[in-house]
Amino acid sequence: MVDIVHRVGVKAPLEQVYRALATREGVAGWWTTDTQGDGKIGGMLKTVFTRDGKVLGGFDLKVLELQPGKRVLWQVADGPAEWIGTRIGFDLKQEDDFSIVLFRHEGWKEPVEFMYHCSTKWATFLMSLKSLVETGKGQPSPDDVRISNWH
Amino acid sequence: MVDIVHRVGVKAPLEQVYRALATREGVAGWWTTDTQGDGKIGGMLKTVFTRDGKVLGGFDLKVLELQPGKRVLWQVADGPAEWIGTRIGFDLKQEDDFSIVLFRHEGWKEPVEFMYHCSTKWATFLMSLKSLVETGKGQPSPDDVRISNWH
Repeated sequence: MVDIVHRVGVKAPLEQVYRALATREGVAGWWTTDTQGDGKIGGMLKTVFTRDGKVLGGFDLKVLELQPGKRVLWQVADGPAEWIGTRIGFDLKQEDDFSIVLFRHEGWKEPVEFMYHCSTKWATFLMSLKSLVETGKGQPSPDDVRISNWH
Repeated sequence: MVDIVHRVGVKAPLEQVYRALATREGVAGWWTTDTQGDGKIGGMLKTVFTRDGKVLGGFDLKVLELQPGKRVLWQVADGPAEWIGTRIGFDLKQEDDFSIVLFRHEGWKEPVEFMYHCSTKWATFLMSLKSLVETGKGQPSPDDVRISNWH
């Protein structure tokens, strides 16, 4: 089992970062504008990623944990085979005037090339989260950062 | 043992991406402008990272492998304790009109918080590599992307 891990610091109060992770509207502001569903515990967030109007794919995420200012945890219920059953967690803490996000996407069975891709994409989306909270503007799909031929 | 992995695609010929990884001048264009030493096999690249004129740290990297257009492999000889002995590899291949870089920083003993930080920083440096080769301008230290309070 191998994990994707990342750390970013957002110059903003914990509650603002938490809100961007724990609500449908928040997630739509940094990951993909096409985020639907229910962000409550036990609910399902449904994300779709498009480019030039064409659907590239999406993920259905069951909300497992919501601890205000501390932790958000999702489990992937549907999406690419490699993602199903994996967990995506965001642990939050305060350091100086930064809210630190410790990110982990865990439960990958094999370190396949798609995982390499997702690791880099997660970094760009976490920078989008940082930008959303600090400036009010993220860079969610379909205007997300293009990192390769896989987009 | 845990690894940091990333994948980016650079819209340029393999030999250009290889040159940015396999030479001192190339590395200085995307990682840190203060890159010294010898980029040949068995040689040592010495990198220093600064901010506002203050040295933050650096890494000494022994060049283990250089396969033109295919692979560059370094081993960390000196730097932060968590990095010493780890290996940093770049595998290259062509797909469509992209040169694909499969990056792996392997041999971390524990998934410490510093590893989370380095994973995100590597993503931003690989995007700097992509930018350097595609546009002629990277974003190496000391003007690298600030991701947190740790910089």
